[in-house]
Amino acid sequence: LTEDALIAQIAGKLRDVAPNNVLLGIGDDAAAWQPSRSNRSVVTTDALIEDVHFRRDLMSAEDVGHRALAANLSDLAAMGARPVLATIALGFPRGTDPAWVLAMYDGMAALARRARCAIAGGDLTRAPVVTIAITAIGEVRPSNLKRRDGARPGDVVAVTGPLGASAAGLTVLRDHPELADETAFAGAIAAFRRPQPRLREARMLAGSRNVHAMMDLSDGLSTDLARMCAASATGARIEQIPVDERARGIAERIGEDAAAWALGGGEDFELLLAVDKRAFRHLAVRFRAHTGRELLRVGSFVAGAGVRDADGASISATGWDHLR
Amino acid sequence: LTEDALIAQIAGKLRDVAPNNVLLGIGDDAAAWQPSRSNRSVVTTDALIEDVHFRRDLMSAEDVGHRALAANLSDLAAMGARPVLATIALGFPRGTDPAWVLAMYDGMAALARRARCAIAGGDLTRAPVVTIAITAIGEVRPSNLKRRDGARPGDVVAVTGPLGASAAGLTVLRDHPELADETAFAGAIAAFRRPQPRLREARMLAGSRNVHAMMDLSDGLSTDLARMCAASATGARIEQIPVDERARGIAERIGEDAAAWALGGGEDFELLLAVDKRAFRHLAVRFRAHTGRELLRVGSFVAGAGVRDADGASISATGWDHLR
Repeated sequence: LTEDALIAQIAGKLRDVAPNNVLLGIGDDAAAWQPSRSNRSVVTTDALIEDVHFRRDLMSAEDVGHRALAANLSDLAAMGARPVLATIALGFPRGTDPAWVLAMYDGMAALARRARCAIAGGDLTRAPVVTIAITAIGEVRPSNLKRRDGARPGDVVAVTGPLGASAAGLTVLRDHPELADETAFAGAIAAFRRPQPRLREARMLAGSRNVHAMMDLSDGLSTDLARMCAASATGARIEQIPVDERARGIAERIGEDAAAWALGGGEDFELLLAVDKRAFRHLAVRFRAHTGRELLRVGSFVAGAGVRDADGASISATGWDHLR
Repeated sequence: LTEDALIAQIAGKLRDVAPNNVLLGIGDDAAAWQPSRSNRSVVTTDALIEDVHFRRDLMSAEDVGHRALAANLSDLAAMGARPVLATIALGFPRGTDPAWVLAMYDGMAALARRARCAIAGGDLTRAPVVTIAITAIGEVRPSNLKRRDGARPGDVVAVTGPLGASAAGLTVLRDHPELADETAFAGAIAAFRRPQPRLREARMLAGSRNVHAMMDLSDGLSTDLARMCAASATGARIEQIPVDERARGIAERIGEDAAAWALGGGEDFELLLAVDKRAFRHLAVRFRAHTGRELLRVGSFVAGAGVRDADGASISATGWDHLR
């Protein structure tokens, strides 16, 4: 299979994932689109490397494609933006079944279609392991752009959902494969394999001036909250760790610590927020009405630096460091 | 060295490479910029994989950084666009000297500064070999956007400069390292290590309605001309192969075929054009006046399909296939 032949097959799969503002898609030196006049553009990039971020024996090709795009869409969500298009640089070893590659694009295209995100270009190459670098571009109204450096002492630390399910799902698949078929564990395994970027939740929250800072939880609450604190020059106190019930059930069964997963497990892709204290209850009510999900209070931003627990003890960043 | 510490050092190097329209650079979930109201946006992505696209023993870290960005800027040039910003997804193996990584960013930043292209974001990760996936975003006036599907029978096939120097430089470095220090070979080696994206040339050409199609020569004339023909539903006849004099000198010295390098050697990053026949001479005069370089006539687009030589014999695509 030549490069040009494979590109033609991939382009065929992605043809219908092309909103009107994309003027030129796959097949030229670059893709072209018409940015909306009143918005700002945002761009994010994220790579998935086989045996670093995923194992082909634990996930289907479709899962891998979904997950690679989900990570990027989650970053757009965290800025308050809606997706416009993405480009995919894919490397894979000689001998990779082209059917695997095409199925990977199927998983990506299904999510792209739901998110109304065109896949407008890419690059194919040989690489020693499967290597997927995605760049996603989105748009946001200037007043809705949410950064991570706006948290203020007194703000509520909140998340858009309970944490730890992705880490629980990974742990079952990797360390207890004999349990992977139990129906009680299917939710956590799906959370690991098919994380859902919180695009709709993010756009609702981005419209509120009372959300002072927003980022996505890709590397674990303890690490990402420390990053928001550092960017905002504040400290934070965690009063309750929002542990996912599915993670708790798995932890009890296999003798692990679900709170550690919630603090240190990456890739839950919930959003982390700094919310004005007086507005939190009202925002949580509106959030429930709009999304059917709960806005969970985790603690408070405080003067100072670093992340502490309710007793004032320092919580170290146990989340994912990509170079560790 | 933690991920956050390395990111801080990289961000320090790139801080001054930030045009005014970039509103938010490295450090948040995504970068943000203000697209120009009257332009279209274009995006391209290209990955460089160690031991596939480059060898660390043949190029310095600065060369690798330069080359990775140059390939992407060349794609923007080929659309007639000027660069706005780029994002970098970098993977590298455990044990990589952080100084190598930082020097790679130095090479990239030097080119970015000259091209006025911000480096606005990225991603760091472990990978089995050095893996650099770059996405570059540019802008172009709608009337100047050049595609590869506009060539018409009768158009002149033209290139913005002679070809084969990059392949000649690579061949010397890889197969005849004992010759690499000869001053006569320095030009070809530089063409290989530090290819220059033809941004200025491209913007001048993009302004002409008589340029019907444009793309960059990254995979070799025979392969890329065949791609332009296929996209435009035409054939082409090559009447003279524009061989670089430096490549010719090296080929004579080591008993290689310089014309084969010009046809099949990738990464010259000159531009391939389809130019209205009646306008070619005038355009070439203007091109010389504007850029100090020569617009070289290679042949003609003809009815039919495929690339042939002056005698009508088929020329097969000997250029780079990334999956071969």
